[in-house]
Amino acid sequence: MYFASDNSGPVLPGVMAALAQANDGYALPYGADPIMAGVRARIREIFEAPEAAVYLVATGTAANSLALATLVQPFGTVFCSPVAHIHEDECNAPEFYSGGAKLTLVPGGDKMTADALRETIAKEETRGVHGPQRGPVSITQVTERGSVYALDELAALCGVARKFGLPVHLDGARFANALVALGCSPAEMTWKLGVDAVSFGGTKNGCMGVEAVIFFDPAKAWEFELRRKRGAHLFSKHRYLSAQMAAYLEGDRWLEAARAANAACARLADGLRAAGATFLFEPQANMIFARFPRAAHKRLHESGAMYYLWDGPLEGDPAEDVACRLVCDWSATEANIDRFLALVRG
Amino acid sequence: MYFASDNSGPVLPGVMAALAQANDGYALPYGADPIMAGVRARIREIFEAPEAAVYLVATGTAANSLALATLVQPFGTVFCSPVAHIHEDECNAPEFYSGGAKLTLVPGGDKMTADALRETIAKEETRGVHGPQRGPVSITQVTERGSVYALDELAALCGVARKFGLPVHLDGARFANALVALGCSPAEMTWKLGVDAVSFGGTKNGCMGVEAVIFFDPAKAWEFELRRKRGAHLFSKHRYLSAQMAAYLEGDRWLEAARAANAACARLADGLRAAGATFLFEPQANMIFARFPRAAHKRLHESGAMYYLWDGPLEGDPAEDVACRLVCDWSATEANIDRFLALVRG
Amino acid sequence: MYFASDNSGPVLPGVMAALAQANDGYALPYGADPIMAGVRARIREIFEAPEAAVYLVATGTAANSLALATLVQPFGTVFCSPVAHIHEDECNAPEFYSGGAKLTLVPGGDKMTADALRETIAKEETRGVHGPQRGPVSITQVTERGSVYALDELAALCGVARKFGLPVHLDGARFANALVALGCSPAEMTWKLGVDAVSFGGTKNGCMGVEAVIFFDPAKAWEFELRRKRGAHLFSKHRYLSAQMAAYLEGDRWLEAARAANAACARLADGLRAAGATFLFEPQANMIFARFPRAAHKRLHESGAMYYLWDGPLEGDPAEDVACRLVCDWSATEANIDRFLALVRG
Amino acid sequence: MYFASDNSGPVLPGVMAALAQANDGYALPYGADPIMAGVRARIREIFEAPEAAVYLVATGTAANSLALATLVQPFGTVFCSPVAHIHEDECNAPEFYSGGAKLTLVPGGDKMTADALRETIAKEETRGVHGPQRGPVSITQVTERGSVYALDELAALCGVARKFGLPVHLDGARFANALVALGCSPAEMTWKLGVDAVSFGGTKNGCMGVEAVIFFDPAKAWEFELRRKRGAHLFSKHRYLSAQMAAYLEGDRWLEAARAANAACARLADGLRAAGATFLFEPQANMIFARFPRAAHKRLHESGAMYYLWDGPLEGDPAEDVACRLVCDWSATEANIDRFLALVRG
Repeated sequence: MYFASDNSGPVLPGVMAALAQANDGYALPYGADPIMAGVRARIREIFEAPEAAVYLVATGTAANSLALATLVQPFGTVFCSPVAHIHEDECNAPEFYSGGAKLTLVPGGDKMTADALRETIAKEETRGVHGPQRGPVSITQVTERGSVYALDELAALCGVARKFGLPVHLDGARFANALVALGCSPAEMTWKLGVDAVSFGGTKNGCMGVEAVIFFDPAKAWEFELRRKRGAHLFSKHRYLSAQMAAYLEGDRWLEAARAANAACARLADGLRAAGATFLFEPQANMIFARFPRAAHKRLHESGAMYYLWDGPLEGDPAEDVACRLVCDWSATEANIDRFLALVRG
Repeated sequence: MYFASDNSGPVLPGVMAALAQANDGYALPYGADPIMAGVRARIREIFEAPEAAVYLVATGTAANSLALATLVQPFGTVFCSPVAHIHEDECNAPEFYSGGAKLTLVPGGDKMTADALRETIAKEETRGVHGPQRGPVSITQVTERGSVYALDELAALCGVARKFGLPVHLDGARFANALVALGCSPAEMTWKLGVDAVSFGGTKNGCMGVEAVIFFDPAKAWEFELRRKRGAHLFSKHRYLSAQMAAYLEGDRWLEAARAANAACARLADGLRAAGATFLFEPQANMIFARFPRAAHKRLHESGAMYYLWDGPLEGDPAEDVACRLVCDWSATEANIDRFLALVRG
Repeated sequence: MYFASDNSGPVLPGVMAALAQANDGYALPYGADPIMAGVRARIREIFEAPEAAVYLVATGTAANSLALATLVQPFGTVFCSPVAHIHEDECNAPEFYSGGAKLTLVPGGDKMTADALRETIAKEETRGVHGPQRGPVSITQVTERGSVYALDELAALCGVARKFGLPVHLDGARFANALVALGCSPAEMTWKLGVDAVSFGGTKNGCMGVEAVIFFDPAKAWEFELRRKRGAHLFSKHRYLSAQMAAYLEGDRWLEAARAANAACARLADGLRAAGATFLFEPQANMIFARFPRAAHKRLHESGAMYYLWDGPLEGDPAEDVACRLVCDWSATEANIDRFLALVRG
Repeated sequence: MYFASDNSGPVLPGVMAALAQANDGYALPYGADPIMAGVRARIREIFEAPEAAVYLVATGTAANSLALATLVQPFGTVFCSPVAHIHEDECNAPEFYSGGAKLTLVPGGDKMTADALRETIAKEETRGVHGPQRGPVSITQVTERGSVYALDELAALCGVARKFGLPVHLDGARFANALVALGCSPAEMTWKLGVDAVSFGGTKNGCMGVEAVIFFDPAKAWEFELRRKRGAHLFSKHRYLSAQMAAYLEGDRWLEAARAANAACARLADGLRAAGATFLFEPQANMIFARFPRAAHKRLHESGAMYYLWDGPLEGDPAEDVACRLVCDWSATEANIDRFLALVRG
């Protein structure tokens, strides 16, 4: 009963097999391996973006920080949600990689609204050389609270950015989970709306440790390569990154993994709702924030269920509601979910 | 016939097996996995250093840059060889991670001498606030030219550093190759001489992508953890780094891999010498720089042998000598070496 | 009728005279001039802090950024008001000088409250290596909206910082204006409350361009010197910084200049209030934010009065109120103020 | 008898007078003062460069670091002499301002030769993403050893840079001293040869603390303004920088000051040569390195003469030669020089 995060489950068997298969003889290092050529072609195909620049790194923070560092100057600022991973969970990596740029938080909740974004960007305009210069808008899809921006919401955000001439970065650590939730194509969720750069996650959806960074306009490709190397994120034995991503994108493996995770999470949410739980955010993908009585949490805790208590301590009035964060990855089983739900019901 | 680098060969079967074995169920992320606890204990045991702080990252440049960033202030300087990897091959990563520290090159060849180091450090002393402040000495063992510092040479360098109160970093991307060449223990090659921090390589000696950073004094452990996270080098699915390193250090696997690489290289060097080649640096570990006629290079080239021409173009007078760099990893076969040598002989 | 800022008026005659007097013969460069020895002694005397480390720089942004950079690690965060100068008006200088630290904004208005500060710091505690580490609290006195923290308010903020073990920085670009408004001693407004470092402004209160940075604990003095040099803020002809500060602090010159500025501003505020104006913030020092009808603004504008329109455009309904920011420095004259007020009254 | 540096003498009377004159009423801050408009026009006139972007800062290190930071990427390298001020005397400021770029030292002495520069740049070419990318060439004129590049030497260096497509920065902390030594025009010594950016010194030649940064191509002007602000080098009371530079460039004041300094130094050199001294570098401008017996140094020392012993301690065999560095500024008097020479002669 592990629902603490989708960064802790096993690697997809198909990805493991691809690693084993890649482990034969010699391959040119540093991204010149032939598997990478295939990855690049496949991502361009999936995104219907034949010119896109495509690179691999091993962590989501590297993908985000390196992508943003090519989009913002050190005297600029990145617009993002107050709960964005780049703000809360990367220990200043975006500030580090950008040479000291700022993150400007768009007031509001989890999801940015176009109005709040517009107002925030507009406000940043009045100080000339004294304030930071406007830089990219970074949108997280799936958000850090498990929400999925609808396409028209994304379009509105991209529209605001475009109006101000600012590039758009999409933190897609859970890109596939959002995609299958929306039932749209990668192009429809990105460049067709005005997204310029994507952190395309693999790790949380069944890879060992690989993320792609995609620039639809390859103008900054070389700069990205230099920043990746300077950041110590260029792998010598790069073929093992390539092999993961190649297997991940083979056929529908990546979409099926995301569908499995989302379906598991929906089962969990439905069961919780039936048991009387409420949700801090409407369940949409593979992460939920549920509120139910402390007594149930104690039962789960004592049975070894793993998840984060989000709001309220484990000790206290048994009847009082406490909130938790629950995440499913591709490997979540119905049996575990049902066992979890049974414990909730008590 | 791939002798271009030891960063391009296959992963050791035992390491691959460990990855497959680790791929079961859930594991706490970010280095809290149980395999990591074993890795820490094993490295402390191997190094006879029960207090050492031990961390894993995926690239050698990350190991070096993060280790040095904890040892040098942004207004300081690192002393190293003009051919050090940190100077020539990391695209300013040490400068980036340290916040703009300098690298001061110790004049001379591949290996630093204690005299040259002493003189260089002494010279950096006279400018007060105007020049950079003296920082760590970084020594590469095996060097970038395939040489191995003898223990007394290392001791002399460490002695100079200690005299000036400076910490010592060892870039051990090929740590095991040096160790088996010297026939000493890890402690004898490091902290017993005065080394403070080690980049302990796994990747070039048969891992997929893992390096340990070891601080014998754990005082800066927490700072290192923060710098690693901020540098985007903390893996969420960390168990796959742990599993590699655990398998690498299981029994004598790591030493045997290094012995195989060194032995292969010795066979290559002996054969070349017998064929009349000369060496730019005395062969000692798993990398050699050999000079032999261009005609032989052309034969090799046309037969698909992979290695770097070091000095002189491939085209020109066939009788003229041209130099090349040849590297063997654990997987180099006698058959390939003998085939290579036959082509040299013509 | 120049009320746009206190950074645009003339230099105090006594300071100009001191510069002329200092311009005789040779003086050791880089802060070793004898005038600086006197400045150090005088500041220690004024602050009743015989051990304090004292340095001069030429701009307030340099004072703030360099002071903060010695108090925060690159993986840390500075707590400050959303309208702090370090956040809004320094073009990412604090982020730059600190190597990429973050500024965490304490929700609320101009002045931070102890409760909001406590809550903000507490929240930053829960993410271990993932979030930035808590760093210094930076308080602006006089605030950017012309308010003056009472001593008990400052004490409460310092108490919160101390409870969390965090250092306190005081941005005192208008230190003297606050001091005379409160009628307390420098020690009472700083180290007696728990302030660790002060940006002690001279420029806005009648100097040409000089600010002192004061550390009550000199432990980081040498680091500050290196950061100042590395930031290119160490003057070779330092005696001209020293001479400004020496003259500024001679007798009560600095306090008299601040009293003159505050008094001028009070006369302006009183007159405006009598004319029916309201204030966005209670006038306390030498900067006010007044709201009165657009028609009056137009009259002022057409008569060449200089100040910032703060809220609302100059064009529109003449009867509607529009807000402005008005600042007085030591040189503001009663005649100009009365002329201004006459124009407001119409 | 102060010959320690040209950073320690008095400010030119005309510059002091201009500061006093500028101290009247209000002036727009941050470089919008009307005096700055005149400075810009005057520098464009002097340099015959009607499009040039012109900015003022207060220190030479700021001028160099900010200029270089706009010309080099953080993953690049600056080519300079091993004795360049940017390398030896700025405590890593160029590395800091550039975000971690490297300085690549061109082997040789004080002056770079075109051949050594070409070879050094060429060598930096072979590492693709692994090594730093080639960046600007920085030339110091007058050099740190008092030498003056002839125009054809500068042309050759610029030609090498142009061949590789690299920009050229001129560190002209002693620009005027070089100009009058060569008897050429500012344009002839800069953009007509291919110089792109100049640090145009005022401080060492009689100003209080002001340097201009000049870009002949204004494309990076806005970036420079942002970097200056972010570096905390934008003065609020900017008119006092402007006034210094305006007075400095009024008529021939700047050239006369340099001529006076150079003439004083020539008198010193001639007298020393007559007394049997030898020179480490041929005297050409206002700084010399002279070798004469220790006994003479002791006499000078005991008489209070101020200068740097360059080579060899003050104590030892009285007949042995010891080297010293002697610098004259505009204020050096014939009386002091003759007194110095008399002491040398004994």
